[in-house]
Amino acid sequence: MNADEESMPDPAERYARAALSILTDPGDAVLGALLRSSRPADVLEVVLSGCSDPAAALRGPGGVRGGAGHDDDGGCAPTASKLLINRAIERWRVRRSQVPSPAGLQAWEDAGLRMVCPGGAEWPTQLDDLGDARPVMLWLRGSTDLRFACLRSVSVVGSRAATAYGSHVATELSAELAGLGWTVISGGAFGVDACAHRGALAVSGCTVAVLASGLNFGYPKGNSDLFAAIAHTGVLVSECPPDRRPTRPGFLVRNRIIAALSRGTLVVEAAARSGALNTARHARELNRLIMAIPGPVTSEQSAGCHELIRESGAALVTGVRDIIEFLAPLGEDGAGPDRDPVLPAADLDPVTASVLRAVALRTGRGPATIATIAGVDLDTALRCLGLLAATGYVERCDQGWRVRTRLSIETSPTSAR
Amino acid sequence: MNADEESMPDPAERYARAALSILTDPGDAVLGALLRSSRPADVLEVVLSGCSDPAAALRGPGGVRGGAGHDDDGGCAPTASKLLINRAIERWRVRRSQVPSPAGLQAWEDAGLRMVCPGGAEWPTQLDDLGDARPVMLWLRGSTDLRFACLRSVSVVGSRAATAYGSHVATELSAELAGLGWTVISGGAFGVDACAHRGALAVSGCTVAVLASGLNFGYPKGNSDLFAAIAHTGVLVSECPPDRRPTRPGFLVRNRIIAALSRGTLVVEAAARSGALNTARHARELNRLIMAIPGPVTSEQSAGCHELIRESGAALVTGVRDIIEFLAPLGEDGAGPDRDPVLPAADLDPVTASVLRAVALRTGRGPATIATIAGVDLDTALRCLGLLAATGYVERCDQGWRVRTRLSIETSPTSAR
Repeated sequence: MNADEESMPDPAERYARAALSILTDPGDAVLGALLRSSRPADVLEVVLSGCSDPAAALRGPGGVRGGAGHDDDGGCAPTASKLLINRAIERWRVRRSQVPSPAGLQAWEDAGLRMVCPGGAEWPTQLDDLGDARPVMLWLRGSTDLRFACLRSVSVVGSRAATAYGSHVATELSAELAGLGWTVISGGAFGVDACAHRGALAVSGCTVAVLASGLNFGYPKGNSDLFAAIAHTGVLVSECPPDRRPTRPGFLVRNRIIAALSRGTLVVEAAARSGALNTARHARELNRLIMAIPGPVTSEQSAGCHELIRESGAALVTGVRDIIEFLAPLGEDGAGPDRDPVLPAADLDPVTASVLRAVALRTGRGPATIATIAGVDLDTALRCLGLLAATGYVERCDQGWRVRTRLSIETSPTSAR
Repeated sequence: MNADEESMPDPAERYARAALSILTDPGDAVLGALLRSSRPADVLEVVLSGCSDPAAALRGPGGVRGGAGHDDDGGCAPTASKLLINRAIERWRVRRSQVPSPAGLQAWEDAGLRMVCPGGAEWPTQLDDLGDARPVMLWLRGSTDLRFACLRSVSVVGSRAATAYGSHVATELSAELAGLGWTVISGGAFGVDACAHRGALAVSGCTVAVLASGLNFGYPKGNSDLFAAIAHTGVLVSECPPDRRPTRPGFLVRNRIIAALSRGTLVVEAAARSGALNTARHARELNRLIMAIPGPVTSEQSAGCHELIRESGAALVTGVRDIIEFLAPLGEDGAGPDRDPVLPAADLDPVTASVLRAVALRTGRGPATIATIAGVDLDTALRCLGLLAATGYVERCDQGWRVRTRLSIETSPTSAR
């Protein structure tokens, strides 16, 4: 990872965003509207100051414009309701005592959490499609670069109460997708979510879990081994501060991130009122593709999928081939198993490029060897390898990692050695 | 049945059509083209005459126009290939010795077969949509009037190698459809076809089996008990002469009749190359609606259904409510359980109207009582009751038949008594 890029949002902004993510609940539309015109540090200052009219304090040259929930960020938007802003800030002030010092944030980072902010190198820019509902920041844990992992990804969601059929299909499809270099994105629930991650992990593929709790809390507890495995080869994501417990509405709010991160959402099994249908609705609103797996008409857990196909225009898909054809039709920018990387080699940051040069063409090398050759530490090497795998440059093999065999010669690192 | 109407095609035409159905194979496009401009008796005479240039013999004022397989019956159609006609007639002449005498036809009718010709009262006029591929005539056996049975009908087809799932769904859906007064139409095969008929029979509903063999041959033999049960409360149909064995291409040719008789074809289970998909293709070509039941993506027997939904625009249906909504949307002429009959009472023929008047409003009466009150024989009473059930006037009950309870008073026969 390029250290300069990673620190693009200045430390004050990073601290302010982290503090605001602690003060507010996910998806707070008033905060989203305020951040359209005010700097995070200014909003945080007003919240922490205890001044009696924070809305007025935030108005000024370039002050707050646009009402809460309004996604027009032009100057002609109506003035935000002063009352609404002051009420929201009053609410946020309740958690003032929970805001950690910069040293407290550093302690979280030292314990393996990454803070990722809009504008940062690892920020998935597709989240910007969420408008005012864009997360203030994301907390991550794991070896994979989130932004690159999501470049060629599919969200696989479904019922917690999955049947044997749904569990089987979620596992098999995710394994096959991950084996072809697609990143699987899902929540952290039992049932389809867990099967999707396990399928990807089974082939050492990349998988992303977006949790509705903080990453240290890790809800549900019964999946903590799974979360540890995801952190090992994929990445855990949450917009909640690390220790926060999940709330009931929080699951639905979280679904927008699952929908926004990928090109398309696949619903494997869903009863008529399943939360997975909510993720599909978010995906449709974001102009992402929606797909559903059909199942027996005698199964309640497939009723939601059939409804999606019939009434919401979801594509009926029966296998990985359908999914890939649907998400990355010929000529689009998805790197299939036989296609070129999704990112030009010239756009790789210098550290990642040096790791790519350290990977052997055919025989494969272990990450420690690669790190030594590239002159970086093991963690950096692993993270870069994750990025290179997600973008289609390298693949796993028995000996570790090798350059993808079908890669055309001019993008092969051997020619640059 | 009104005897005058039934005999609308004159005896010579009926005999000629029966003879031509013996001489030719089903769906012969040359015969279809010839019958557009020549009378059946004239075609038969030329075939049986042994003249050396039958095509020339059939040309004359108003002679043969239109090529084989051409569905334009206007005068501008190109002249049919003389060679093609002469070759076809040469082929037909091979079976000359099989053509029975009028007494032989009468023997079949005496044994319970009905000959139904275009223009006859029991002819289902929707078969005319088949153009030159319209059957020359139909052979029927059973208590129900075919034309009226098909007014509110759905074709239910699928794999011979149905799974437990497909058998269950075919049986349950057909029982529910038949219970709501819809006629179920299918072939005579094991698997989905047989389940569809059994479901309808289980609720004493109306079911129509279109066989690819002659009705006396009754292929497959393993379903002969089922065919007897269908003849008892529904109707068996074939365009083949009574003793003919089925041929492999005959099954596909027969499918066009299943597709044409109903408003829509439902495929319950079908492997990727199932004959049921051929029926669906016929239905689509005839502008009938096509529907498919989804199933597990892990089942090969649902692959054809999923393909129909994804690539042929078949409606995904999961239950009877979907099917009825799709086939008879609000405001169309389908008589739902709460709707008026599909045929105005004034359009009933006098015999049928007298049988309707003999049916009790609520308590129900047995068919023998109804026959006595109406002054008709039992067979006539049963046939009229089938017609009245198919068109929404009467329904079965524990005591026999009663007037449909939801029928509005002005169409109730009690007010006419």
